[in-house]
Amino acid sequence: MTSVPEPKVSDLAELKRRLHQVSDLSAAAGLMSWDQETQMPPDAARVRGLQMATLAGLSHELFTAPRMNELLAQAEPGSDETDAALLRVTRRDHARATRLPTEFVEERARASSEAHHAWIDARKDNDFAHFAPHLEKMMDLARRYADLQGFDDHPYDALLDDYEPGMKVSQVRAIFADLRDRTLPLLRRIVAAGDATDYSVLSRPFPAAAQRQFGLKIAGEAFGLNPSFSRLDESAHPFQTNFSRDDIRVTTRFDERYFPMSLFGTWHETGHAMYEHGISARLERTPLSRGASLGVHESQSRMFENLLGRSRPFWQRHFAEFAQAAPEVARGQDAESLYRAVNRVRPDLIRVEADEVTYNFHIMLRFELELALLEGTLAVRDLPEAWNARMGEFLGVTPPDDTRGVLQDIHWSAGLIGYFPTYTLGNLLSVQLLEAAKGDAGIAEEVERAEYSRLRGWLVQNVHRYGRSRTPHEITVGATGKPLGADAYVKYLEDKYSDIYGLS
Amino acid sequence: MTSVPEPKVSDLAELKRRLHQVSDLSAAAGLMSWDQETQMPPDAARVRGLQMATLAGLSHELFTAPRMNELLAQAEPGSDETDAALLRVTRRDHARATRLPTEFVEERARASSEAHHAWIDARKDNDFAHFAPHLEKMMDLARRYADLQGFDDHPYDALLDDYEPGMKVSQVRAIFADLRDRTLPLLRRIVAAGDATDYSVLSRPFPAAAQRQFGLKIAGEAFGLNPSFSRLDESAHPFQTNFSRDDIRVTTRFDERYFPMSLFGTWHETGHAMYEHGISARLERTPLSRGASLGVHESQSRMFENLLGRSRPFWQRHFAEFAQAAPEVARGQDAESLYRAVNRVRPDLIRVEADEVTYNFHIMLRFELELALLEGTLAVRDLPEAWNARMGEFLGVTPPDDTRGVLQDIHWSAGLIGYFPTYTLGNLLSVQLLEAAKGDAGIAEEVERAEYSRLRGWLVQNVHRYGRSRTPHEITVGATGKPLGADAYVKYLEDKYSDIYGLS
Repeated sequence: MTSVPEPKVSDLAELKRRLHQVSDLSAAAGLMSWDQETQMPPDAARVRGLQMATLAGLSHELFTAPRMNELLAQAEPGSDETDAALLRVTRRDHARATRLPTEFVEERARASSEAHHAWIDARKDNDFAHFAPHLEKMMDLARRYADLQGFDDHPYDALLDDYEPGMKVSQVRAIFADLRDRTLPLLRRIVAAGDATDYSVLSRPFPAAAQRQFGLKIAGEAFGLNPSFSRLDESAHPFQTNFSRDDIRVTTRFDERYFPMSLFGTWHETGHAMYEHGISARLERTPLSRGASLGVHESQSRMFENLLGRSRPFWQRHFAEFAQAAPEVARGQDAESLYRAVNRVRPDLIRVEADEVTYNFHIMLRFELELALLEGTLAVRDLPEAWNARMGEFLGVTPPDDTRGVLQDIHWSAGLIGYFPTYTLGNLLSVQLLEAAKGDAGIAEEVERAEYSRLRGWLVQNVHRYGRSRTPHEITVGATGKPLGADAYVKYLEDKYSDIYGLS
Repeated sequence: MTSVPEPKVSDLAELKRRLHQVSDLSAAAGLMSWDQETQMPPDAARVRGLQMATLAGLSHELFTAPRMNELLAQAEPGSDETDAALLRVTRRDHARATRLPTEFVEERARASSEAHHAWIDARKDNDFAHFAPHLEKMMDLARRYADLQGFDDHPYDALLDDYEPGMKVSQVRAIFADLRDRTLPLLRRIVAAGDATDYSVLSRPFPAAAQRQFGLKIAGEAFGLNPSFSRLDESAHPFQTNFSRDDIRVTTRFDERYFPMSLFGTWHETGHAMYEHGISARLERTPLSRGASLGVHESQSRMFENLLGRSRPFWQRHFAEFAQAAPEVARGQDAESLYRAVNRVRPDLIRVEADEVTYNFHIMLRFELELALLEGTLAVRDLPEAWNARMGEFLGVTPPDDTRGVLQDIHWSAGLIGYFPTYTLGNLLSVQLLEAAKGDAGIAEEVERAEYSRLRGWLVQNVHRYGRSRTPHEITVGATGKPLGADAYVKYLEDKYSDIYGLS
């Protein structure tokens, strides 16, 4: 190879070139992962694991190379606001990546792989004791991670910061307490009111191919998901991933005797998809070209799934089409009966099957227990008991076994501690955003007709386009005029479910 | 990042680790390319191009890094034969990669991208003059490439060596002359014999889904393609690619009024697939874990497609099943009539549609013209005339336009000069291998019953498992006892087509 003098470019230009490389490697790794979940022949798994590890290693090497330090220290953003945001976010990511010694990263990767396998077995055998030492290890690693990253008030802040940048445990505590105090009475009133709705309609047969066609048609016509930049596949666990804003992959799963799983699942992932698709093309192939946080992401998926997809106008508008797609389900039904069926409130054991009213209690429970475990005020061996007690207190149900209790979620086995609160933060933000959007000309009227083109434009303008160039807090305040809180969500629940359950 | 002293490993171990990285990056690039052809939403194309360029660049950087030079110079293979082959092949690849200055690689990438677009337009408009300057440029680059790589006898040797390592233009000339002299008379006799077969059966309707099912079933049962390590998708241009020996992707295309395209296409790609699947797992993630050459690869695809898939025993065995899959096609037909229909010999214009007898004349024509262009004895502007003259001489047909003549193939526009001969070398090798295999106990009898399990075992043992650890010549001599020649192929054609066309 002859040696060619490199053309002189600015530090910022070189930084961007290197960030493009890191982004492109991540895209390749993302494609490998999507392919593994949706397309790959089973025997390919072992080598695919090695290939993905190589890509992760190379990406980390590129991002933490010595030259990256120099460029991040020297690069000047000039007057461009996006360049300034790029430097700010990249410096933050880089600091967080370089604070972790290689040994720690490797130890954590090994431990979470072992914990994940132990969790699978423990769940299968309903044997919490088998998982307990691994959870202790994951908690120990979480404490060490917090120490390595540093924090002012609480080690949990350092964990939360990965998923919800800028959010503090003190704020989450205050918001959750408010939410709990104001929605627990509502839940008690709903349960007391009784329920004469016939929910058997939800388990009438609806062939998978027809579910797919109807779900995708609505995702396209109502929510804007277009095959020119996206595709829908089947996977064991539904997800959204993307390799650019115009290369979006959504997955779902089908139960022919429980259609809400695929329909609301598809529209949920469509919310994530449209967020990523709405990010400004100017941010392409940089660390800014992702959603601002898990909470902001979840606000978009929950808006399409619940606030729109489970709304009365939506079923009024789409009932005829639904009846064509699923004649057996629709027989003897109308828009109103289906609207009520898909909005059943029922305190139960499993988070991922929970309704809008009970869902957040599942999250609050996990948040409280994570905090107690991290602080050491709760021992891992006492966790099942604490879990079951809190379930009784919040939802009035007691898990008959740990598989349907403390072992139900994958998150802790993967070391994802600090992740759960973002689900509820997203729920709260979804309503706060929708209420703010309705203040704009014409949007409230359109939403009442289950038309969303102006709303989608508003979301792109006020949320999507920024990617990570604004913080979740900046986006929230910019779009809604106030910080995140429970007010809008509480009012939404009270209005919707007082009506459905005939509460006075 | 704290600095950790690297554990002391041998140069060979470090070399392998780096080669695994290069291989894993290639796998990721391969997946991106497969995804682009079979799955990707259309709007994703632009960014995907940038991402693939990054992966190619990083892969080249890793492979030509200064440390690679040291390791290749210092590594000791010990007594392990595979390690010795790994060093030999990697040194060869590395030397060929590092002989090309970056400017040359970039110039060639630009020129071939421009040539490719010009070719598409020229083909659409039947305008060779539009493509001519680009072909001149590609020929100029081919000459410079040969000079950079170096050669003893003929610049074409340096080109051929990329596709058929070790093969010389002098050998190809001798083999092709022999083949031409011995099959042109056969072709003349076939044409003179006339043909009363009813070929309209080939264009009877056969729904794509049923073609797919039948094609895949045979690919599995007869040829060993198993969904545990492979999958079949649709693409505009059929191909085989793989990201490990257990992660193989085959594509085909369907014409509901011409079923041979998808069936023989699927079995052709299955031959490529089974070669890659048969490579020893010991060679995994190294430069040895690929087919030995394009010619050896083509010998496997042609064996399944033609020597087996277009054989009389094959159609005798599978006719009943075929008739079930395609009742409209099979009506009034039997195994013998279908066998004859799929073996039609007809001199015609288009290479990719050519039969076993005429196909090699398309290749010989291209080889002669490539040589003349490279040597400068033929000017690009005179190429169409030379092409058409040779078509008349070999096949007795004259292209009515350049689109169906000199502009029909993609290869020259992509700079793939020296590639064409491997198609015919593969055809010759396919028969030479099959005849050698039939000398092994039981194989000839099985093949007569259209059972191929022993044959497939023989191919793994004598061809597949070596990957690139043996040269094409070593594999040929090891498996068949002699160097590659035209004898077996000529005898095969004479026997088969004398019978079909009733030649005395």
